[in-house]
Amino acid sequence: MQYQFSDRISGLKPSAIREILKVTQDPSVISFAAGNPSPESFPAAEMAEIATDLFRNRAGEALQYGMTEGYMPLRQQTAKRLREKYRIGTDGDDLIITSGGQQALELAAKVFLNEGDTLICEDPSFVGALNAFRSYRVRLVGCPTDELGMRMDILENLLKTQPRVKVIYTIPTFQNPSGRTMPESRRREMLALAEKYNVMILEDNPYFELRYSGEPVPAIKSMDVNGRVIYAGSYSKVLAPGIRMGFACAPREVIGKMVVAKQTSDVHSNLFFQMVISEYLNRYDLDAHIEQVRGLYRHKRDVMLDAIGRHFDKRVSVTHPDGGLFLWVQLPDGCDGFALCERAGVQKVAAVPGVSFLVNDEMKSPGIRLNFSLPSDSQIETGIAILGKVIEDYLKEVEA
Amino acid sequence: MQYQFSDRISGLKPSAIREILKVTQDPSVISFAAGNPSPESFPAAEMAEIATDLFRNRAGEALQYGMTEGYMPLRQQTAKRLREKYRIGTDGDDLIITSGGQQALELAAKVFLNEGDTLICEDPSFVGALNAFRSYRVRLVGCPTDELGMRMDILENLLKTQPRVKVIYTIPTFQNPSGRTMPESRRREMLALAEKYNVMILEDNPYFELRYSGEPVPAIKSMDVNGRVIYAGSYSKVLAPGIRMGFACAPREVIGKMVVAKQTSDVHSNLFFQMVISEYLNRYDLDAHIEQVRGLYRHKRDVMLDAIGRHFDKRVSVTHPDGGLFLWVQLPDGCDGFALCERAGVQKVAAVPGVSFLVNDEMKSPGIRLNFSLPSDSQIETGIAILGKVIEDYLKEVEA
Repeated sequence: MQYQFSDRISGLKPSAIREILKVTQDPSVISFAAGNPSPESFPAAEMAEIATDLFRNRAGEALQYGMTEGYMPLRQQTAKRLREKYRIGTDGDDLIITSGGQQALELAAKVFLNEGDTLICEDPSFVGALNAFRSYRVRLVGCPTDELGMRMDILENLLKTQPRVKVIYTIPTFQNPSGRTMPESRRREMLALAEKYNVMILEDNPYFELRYSGEPVPAIKSMDVNGRVIYAGSYSKVLAPGIRMGFACAPREVIGKMVVAKQTSDVHSNLFFQMVISEYLNRYDLDAHIEQVRGLYRHKRDVMLDAIGRHFDKRVSVTHPDGGLFLWVQLPDGCDGFALCERAGVQKVAAVPGVSFLVNDEMKSPGIRLNFSLPSDSQIETGIAILGKVIEDYLKEVEA
Repeated sequence: MQYQFSDRISGLKPSAIREILKVTQDPSVISFAAGNPSPESFPAAEMAEIATDLFRNRAGEALQYGMTEGYMPLRQQTAKRLREKYRIGTDGDDLIITSGGQQALELAAKVFLNEGDTLICEDPSFVGALNAFRSYRVRLVGCPTDELGMRMDILENLLKTQPRVKVIYTIPTFQNPSGRTMPESRRREMLALAEKYNVMILEDNPYFELRYSGEPVPAIKSMDVNGRVIYAGSYSKVLAPGIRMGFACAPREVIGKMVVAKQTSDVHSNLFFQMVISEYLNRYDLDAHIEQVRGLYRHKRDVMLDAIGRHFDKRVSVTHPDGGLFLWVQLPDGCDGFALCERAGVQKVAAVPGVSFLVNDEMKSPGIRLNFSLPSDSQIETGIAILGKVIEDYLKEVEA
């Protein structure tokens, strides 16, 4: 049978990364392709204890339908922590629990963007978000970046010249895929431009608490006095991703619309694990847990950077991010990250080609993204050595 | 600040039912408004045991990111059970795990329906589904029903005359809100009409295993040889709703598109509870569990029907459904179910006015929907007595 799919889905390709991840189910492959946290970072024993108590004492509530907005104590705890620790959120804001940070982005797109409206984002950017926007037939315009994130001069030019711009999407801290962080001054500039050109900012900040070096930079949302920023956060990177728990903090009216959209989408997020997280926040010290996770990932980042220093050709440049889960490897001009990833795959090392993150994915990118949180130390050493050899061979070939 | 929301969300109202449910958080209110299963029906002890084992032996996997399609063993177990027990699904079909049955409906709408496309549904129908369709600016056309469900003569006329019809949405078994079931002959007729007019059928069947009397009727999907039916199912009503686990069975190509859409929506459903259900199906007998749940709800249905027989004015008609969670109460012509529900609310009895389920919710409906699965026997007796008195007073007033 010939199916007539909707226009919005016909043009949408499955995420290349998730296709690559299928291949990496092969245990003999060393994967730097994922965005997965390390299982070592999951507080499984603590969650197990809480789950046992919930099943014993509150199963009737935890397994029943819940409110679309989320489990009230978890909403309050999350909002309180954001506000007291990071000045994120004001009296005019509200908070919704979402099924992962991804759903916060998707709901924001659904409630703000008509088909054909324009969204400006970093280029390259997180492909999961870009696909969510594409699924609403939003017109994506990429803004070039430098070492300090989105270029504000070019952003202003785009805001002036592009039609129907309604949202700026940014991952200001340890950006995916680049690993880079926008400094405070540039964040203030972005907010000022959003005010000047009357557009919303969708601030996607899932990694910011995974800082291993350098000084914290305040969230754009913490500077937002007029209710122009929708803040998307996640428990995936600090607790566990498989339970799909994220949140959005935004002006009350915006959250109200996101609640209406979420009702139609999944009614509410898994209530049992909303209660697990709430109780985790009651019984344990999330900040102390995050400090441990930071130690783990700081070590892994340094192991990978050290191995790269020994194994990669010096013409290849690599970011040294202060946090997050990713390094960005840039090959010399004229090289193709996709071709490199294909060769690495043959050698059973997986990485994601930069082209996957481009707004226009028919372009070429000389970059590849490497994840350091999931592989073991010895996998990092072995995999980076193999990748170094693949790069060496590839560069020779390109020169020839 | 003045927000410019998308057209698709501006016109969408929060579900009246969920607003009513907020009121029923007051413990002194007797609620017949919910669609909730009884907490007595949740296999909490069994889930607790499985959860303990998962945390002990497989936490790293269960808390990690998973595949968008769903946890492979659960997909296989679900598909096998549907096929062997109900002849639902063929070699050309595939199955996706969704975040509740609601997400299966929302994804089906997203992948098939452009803005302005037409969907035909029973009128009244499940408001959660209608709002999902409305959120994609789908044109809804209601088809009148009789005691045997959607009227096939009118359906054919609509298929002939309405522009851009792409999908027929139906809840064939123990329909929400009417409680009615379409007989096999009419199901065959609907499928033949879908073939004739080249439209898809979205079959929403969350209640069919909750049968308390009468003979089972085969699913439309079990008659589908050409891949024209998208089947949406749920574990909410037979295990527990708070964990948000549903599924869709549809032609492989359709499921492929739903996977792409789900990636952008929530990446995957809560993996821990996908594994809990999979292990539940390994260790326990779901059919035996459902048999117990049937006994519980059969009793509650009968308690409610008995109380209605004693307390309601004889001019009021009530459905005697063979299963599901709902009775439909029809007041005499000229009466307004909404006005009745308002009066009942004052007396601390909650019910949902029929108008909430209408395709055109600016019409009036002389019906109200009553849920019998959640309230206790004594709440049913007390609440129906109060409702009987409210109806009596209301009818007197209407006559005057």
